[in-house]
Amino acid sequence: MVFTHTFERRTRGQGDVHDVTEEVTRALEGSGLGSGILTVFVVGSTAAITTIEFEPGALADMNRLFDALAPRDAHYDHHLRWGDDNGSSHVRAALLGPSLTVPFTAGRVVLGTWQQVVLVEFDTRARSRQVVVQVVGE
Amino acid sequence: MVFTHTFERRTRGQGDVHDVTEEVTRALEGSGLGSGILTVFVVGSTAAITTIEFEPGALADMNRLFDALAPRDAHYDHHLRWGDDNGSSHVRAALLGPSLTVPFTAGRVVLGTWQQVVLVEFDTRARSRQVVVQVVGE
Amino acid sequence: MVFTHTFERRTRGQGDVHDVTEEVTRALEGSGLGSGILTVFVVGSTAAITTIEFEPGALADMNRLFDALAPRDAHYDHHLRWGDDNGSSHVRAALLGPSLTVPFTAGRVVLGTWQQVVLVEFDTRARSRQVVVQVVGE
Repeated sequence: MVFTHTFERRTRGQGDVHDVTEEVTRALEGSGLGSGILTVFVVGSTAAITTIEFEPGALADMNRLFDALAPRDAHYDHHLRWGDDNGSSHVRAALLGPSLTVPFTAGRVVLGTWQQVVLVEFDTRARSRQVVVQVVGE
Repeated sequence: MVFTHTFERRTRGQGDVHDVTEEVTRALEGSGLGSGILTVFVVGSTAAITTIEFEPGALADMNRLFDALAPRDAHYDHHLRWGDDNGSSHVRAALLGPSLTVPFTAGRVVLGTWQQVVLVEFDTRARSRQVVVQVVGE
Repeated sequence: MVFTHTFERRTRGQGDVHDVTEEVTRALEGSGLGSGILTVFVVGSTAAITTIEFEPGALADMNRLFDALAPRDAHYDHHLRWGDDNGSSHVRAALLGPSLTVPFTAGRVVLGTWQQVVLVEFDTRARSRQVVVQVVGE
């Protein structure tokens, strides 16, 4: 059995991190499934999905890591192609990845108490993001 | 068809890497399934799952990379919140991710000979980790 | 229902990135399935799978990031074991990961227009890579 839940989320640009755990939980409840896996996927190549303790300090620390790895104002060949300014966004998103798969049992995802599913916006401007939660199980 | 295998693994803290391939194989055999995918997921926000050649040199090299990316004694805003000392653990775990999905066919995972599934402990203290292997297939 | 599509891809060594989206699409079409998830997995511990805008500039930027993270000519303990020269390959591959899971609905993957599925070769020599696309759905 497969159940699809798609939602939109407006972001404020690079460094904006959204807790989407409640949307994931809602998708699972809506499916009526008890046991299986669900995949959370963000459409587009300048955002990513992961888990983190959703607490302002940890989010700031993660953003600081990405700022150091791929500074926004460094040289990017990608800028030469389209006149874009989001080369840092593309490499950060490719590194972190657009997809996360989480098991569920007895109708509940197996996330830890301090482990939230987050949408990480890496683009340099505000975006409206489409996120797909695909629930597969029985 | 869905089959769940959950196990605990005691770790010795930051830098401790465990080969859990045998547990994954056992989960698959226990399921009796022939073809599908399985997701290996670690509960909690300071550990991660990936694959690597499980050889002391490669593990040391990986740990050295994470030590450089997010040094344990750097400044972390997360420390200000709870008085914790594991800011480095949270950002490393968010970067590597808690989840890995592997296909299986003819009752065997498609891992390479030198490609092991590993649990990477990033927390600054010893932990008992809960890992869920969710097998989905036919 | 599970459908497996396996293919080989020859690479030219470290930094070679292949767009495999068409192979993924072909696997999905071959399955005849309408809704579910598919996992793209590369066998071996020195290559990885992710998504990126498949454009030479963005690929060069991503390679530059990995060259900075794990330079090919740095010290690697892994080299001491086998006399290998691909320590950089192992840590890059462990960081990026061998697996990507993408939802599909109405017979189409939910990738963005500028979001391609890529095989990233990290090994220091040309390789022939085996990639498994496992389609699970209904």
